[in-house]
Amino acid sequence: MSAEHHREHAGAGARTVAARRRRLRADRARQLADLLRHQILTGAFAEGVLPYEEAIGRDYGATRNTVRQALGLLSAEGLVERVPGVGTVVACEKYRHGLDRLQGLAETLHEHGQVSNEVRTVGPVRAPAPVAARLGLPEHSEVLYIERLRRLGGLPLSLDLTYLPLDIGVELLDADLEHTDVFRLLESVTGQPLGRAEITLEAVNADAHSAAVLQAPRGAAVLMLERLTHLADGRPVDLEFIRFRGDRITMSGLLHRAT
Amino acid sequence: MSAEHHREHAGAGARTVAARRRRLRADRARQLADLLRHQILTGAFAEGVLPYEEAIGRDYGATRNTVRQALGLLSAEGLVERVPGVGTVVACEKYRHGLDRLQGLAETLHEHGQVSNEVRTVGPVRAPAPVAARLGLPEHSEVLYIERLRRLGGLPLSLDLTYLPLDIGVELLDADLEHTDVFRLLESVTGQPLGRAEITLEAVNADAHSAAVLQAPRGAAVLMLERLTHLADGRPVDLEFIRFRGDRITMSGLLHRAT
Repeated sequence: MSAEHHREHAGAGARTVAARRRRLRADRARQLADLLRHQILTGAFAEGVLPYEEAIGRDYGATRNTVRQALGLLSAEGLVERVPGVGTVVACEKYRHGLDRLQGLAETLHEHGQVSNEVRTVGPVRAPAPVAARLGLPEHSEVLYIERLRRLGGLPLSLDLTYLPLDIGVELLDADLEHTDVFRLLESVTGQPLGRAEITLEAVNADAHSAAVLQAPRGAAVLMLERLTHLADGRPVDLEFIRFRGDRITMSGLLHRAT
Repeated sequence: MSAEHHREHAGAGARTVAARRRRLRADRARQLADLLRHQILTGAFAEGVLPYEEAIGRDYGATRNTVRQALGLLSAEGLVERVPGVGTVVACEKYRHGLDRLQGLAETLHEHGQVSNEVRTVGPVRAPAPVAARLGLPEHSEVLYIERLRRLGGLPLSLDLTYLPLDIGVELLDADLEHTDVFRLLESVTGQPLGRAEITLEAVNADAHSAAVLQAPRGAAVLMLERLTHLADGRPVDLEFIRFRGDRITMSGLLHRAT
């Protein structure tokens, strides 16, 4: 093996070691970020200020570099802000939406403030075939379509696309859609409680237009909820497609092993 | 008003009309994309091929431009691919993870194929204070830390960070972690079934390193699941932080109005 070749080989070895060290540090930063995320979401830091980097490092057995990288990850997620001279502060409250019980947004978030809805569209449309089928309506029926941008304390939380059977929907046209959950209106209009809802949750990147409406960066992670809600008597009455800003909402619940 | 001024004003009006038209088309594209997404996820399109643009337009009462824009949104999400000469095809199966019952990944996806786990790290670590607290352990206890990249049919699905109490964890060191859910191992090691789990779901943008591990684009939307699982006797035994690729997993379940 020539001296030249040997040097190259040693160089490659050093590069591998450096790459491995970077990878390990990135792994550790992710571990630490996940632990801090939980503390942030559950309000464990008094007045929303995180401890100093040294203290975090001590508490979590992490180096200063790892702590910095972890805080960088949380800052990129929009969960914390690094304020010079102050430290790291919780940037924006993230609200817990319950997964245990079927609730409207205003109901579930009532202790955090008033939900207001900007009604972007409301009116009858001919139901596309899958909408008619899922709402148990004859093909080509009309349905009421409602599109709302929902805010809490003025900040956009979600963009909701809603399809309702027209016989029930027309009764909502005069209702206070700006300040009332559709769930509450459905119960008051039909005189019966809601029953069950089939839900599907996904994480998607917001397209440019949805991001603009939600005042989020293009490509921002969105928690997408599709929900078909039935009245207590079983009739499907409310098909919704909801985009929650990922940095503003978490969904929490309890799962059981036995059913 | 001068003729000059009037022309400027008319120009602004035309621009407003054009902007409004673009906004309306973007709104309609989103509506259509959401309806198609449900059809795709539930396997409504035979052999994973979507109908021609004209047919979609007819079925959903949408213009050709809206159809194209909607397919563009789904393609940007990685849900469909537009193949010249073939049309629009479903790009990648998205698996339904149940929200109704506490299940491991291999259990819940068994009908789709074999889940394999690449164990990136396994070993004892000193528990950071919040980990010890949540697992009901004395401060500074050691826990078993496991990091796994989980694949289905060779494709990365999730990156799982797991903390287990060491007394239970040590018994997993000789187990087949590459092909067995931690849930199943916990039940076999402790001789009792799991009980409940508290879960929190979020949508976050993947940081560069997590994205690289998951072989997803940087910033890709990730469905983040934090889960604290208890044995049937109530003891907390498994704290996990799971990043699911947003384009590969949906979470589905049933919610009820009354509790």
